[in-house]
Amino acid sequence: MSLAEGVLRGDVRATAKLISLIENQPEAAVADLQELHPHTGNAHVVGITGSPGVGKSTLVDGLAKRWRKEERRVGIIAVDPNSPFSGGALLGDRVRMQDLATDPGVFIRSMGARGRLGGLARATHNVIRVLDSGGKDVILVETVGVGQSEVDIVQTADTVVVGLVPGMGDDIQTIKAGILETADVFAINKADRPNARGLEMELRTLFGWNQEEEEDRWIPPIEMTVATTGAGMDELKEAICDHWDHLKRTGELQHRRRERYEAELQSVVEDYWRKRFFDYWQREGHWERVVEQVLRKETDPFTAAQQLVVPFLDSEVGG
Amino acid sequence: MSLAEGVLRGDVRATAKLISLIENQPEAAVADLQELHPHTGNAHVVGITGSPGVGKSTLVDGLAKRWRKEERRVGIIAVDPNSPFSGGALLGDRVRMQDLATDPGVFIRSMGARGRLGGLARATHNVIRVLDSGGKDVILVETVGVGQSEVDIVQTADTVVVGLVPGMGDDIQTIKAGILETADVFAINKADRPNARGLEMELRTLFGWNQEEEEDRWIPPIEMTVATTGAGMDELKEAICDHWDHLKRTGELQHRRRERYEAELQSVVEDYWRKRFFDYWQREGHWERVVEQVLRKETDPFTAAQQLVVPFLDSEVGG
Repeated sequence: MSLAEGVLRGDVRATAKLISLIENQPEAAVADLQELHPHTGNAHVVGITGSPGVGKSTLVDGLAKRWRKEERRVGIIAVDPNSPFSGGALLGDRVRMQDLATDPGVFIRSMGARGRLGGLARATHNVIRVLDSGGKDVILVETVGVGQSEVDIVQTADTVVVGLVPGMGDDIQTIKAGILETADVFAINKADRPNARGLEMELRTLFGWNQEEEEDRWIPPIEMTVATTGAGMDELKEAICDHWDHLKRTGELQHRRRERYEAELQSVVEDYWRKRFFDYWQREGHWERVVEQVLRKETDPFTAAQQLVVPFLDSEVGG
Repeated sequence: MSLAEGVLRGDVRATAKLISLIENQPEAAVADLQELHPHTGNAHVVGITGSPGVGKSTLVDGLAKRWRKEERRVGIIAVDPNSPFSGGALLGDRVRMQDLATDPGVFIRSMGARGRLGGLARATHNVIRVLDSGGKDVILVETVGVGQSEVDIVQTADTVVVGLVPGMGDDIQTIKAGILETADVFAINKADRPNARGLEMELRTLFGWNQEEEEDRWIPPIEMTVATTGAGMDELKEAICDHWDHLKRTGELQHRRRERYEAELQSVVEDYWRKRFFDYWQREGHWERVVEQVLRKETDPFTAAQQLVVPFLDSEVGG
């Protein structure tokens, strides 16, 4: 039985095994991913991001439990793109989730960055593909930081929740231009702290909520939560579900998924090329020599690139 | 006269113009960059990174002024990869640098992320190429955040300075696995705050400074600075210069630059491919149809990629 068949039958071990394959030997996972692709598209993918200290894990935890109460099957992927050197993610607080971890309706996985960034977004997308085809109704993707990498990863989600906390005013400025624009729902967590309303007003001002409403235009709601006590968590979950309904009703869901598949197709094509190209030049031992020439200023990277590409095409003709 | 010729003669307007071209129409800048490449390699490229609040701009400011006192020509590039949506960087504190900005021996430029991340690291590398060939002795590259993108950008530097401040203990844990390992010099800034020594000890423990010294092994020094008063800044500058001497003496400089050129060559090659490939498929109107098929699950991205690549190679044969 292929791993994909196992995944489709809801086998946890096959699921874990295929995800490890995606992380460690992505090429070996392709056949299974091809098999799974037609079975995807049912899960609601929810990205959760925000600065460290926002309480993302606790938000994810609380949301997962609420969906579980409704017998929805939940997948959780915690991604830490800030660990390029270590294989695993720095997610010690995962231990808090132990009651979820023993629930067979929940699958939890953390991922660190391996190799290139694009690779991490791609791997995340493929892990979503696995959990989606395996029958998860909701897949929560939590990212640890607030950089471009998180934007890339979070953009694979249908609904993006951005977590903020009062008293980190500077951070709004810092992350404003990056993550905030991707938000479909805001969660002001630790909202029992002073200035929660001030933060809410600041968000409203930044995003011009005072403009006129248009039909079918989604205005990101701002939910006040205290994830540790559960306050506001039902409302947050409802806001996320409202956004899902909105996506389906307006056709925006198809539009987002189309963009996501296009980006994925593009990166698969590029990997395919990359492999062919570097296999060719490294076999010839030529690559190293060209790099040396660039270093010695005998050529420049732009000239060298053209000189590498043309003979490669010719070789592809011959072969 | 080409922009490159202007740059080589130290013309500020030509320099600014070429940098704008690199940012806005990178393809149009290639001829000038080819012309400049043989004239590069003299400048000491110093990357400065660390969490928001570390005082990176003030550190950069203080270092630049110290090099200026020795009549060294200085370039400053401030990169903000967290602004994928806006064109410009959020660098309001640049105003502090006004006395530097009016100094003809200093060239300051801030860059926001345009398009893809790899693009930003590449653009930064090309801006370094321009300033280097234009005769800058030291080029300071400041990044705003602490994510993978900053690692990529900072890795284009010969010397990486990581700024930290006492009292942000959590951040050490957060950024540990990413940026800290790339440090050649640590600056504990705002060292007049409590716990500066504690932070120093923490760093020593994390990085095992107690291990035996080997000859020619660089152990990142930890400098205590208060950039706003200038305390420790001379020592920081000296540590950076010591690292530069070390790089040159041990041959490590060639090694680092070789890696940098190899990464650049790789990404130029990939851009070249990407353009050829998508020009081909978009002209045929085929690309959109394939994306639709993936969306409708009639095919999957892996199968589709292969089916796109093979006819492309055939077409390159014919043309």
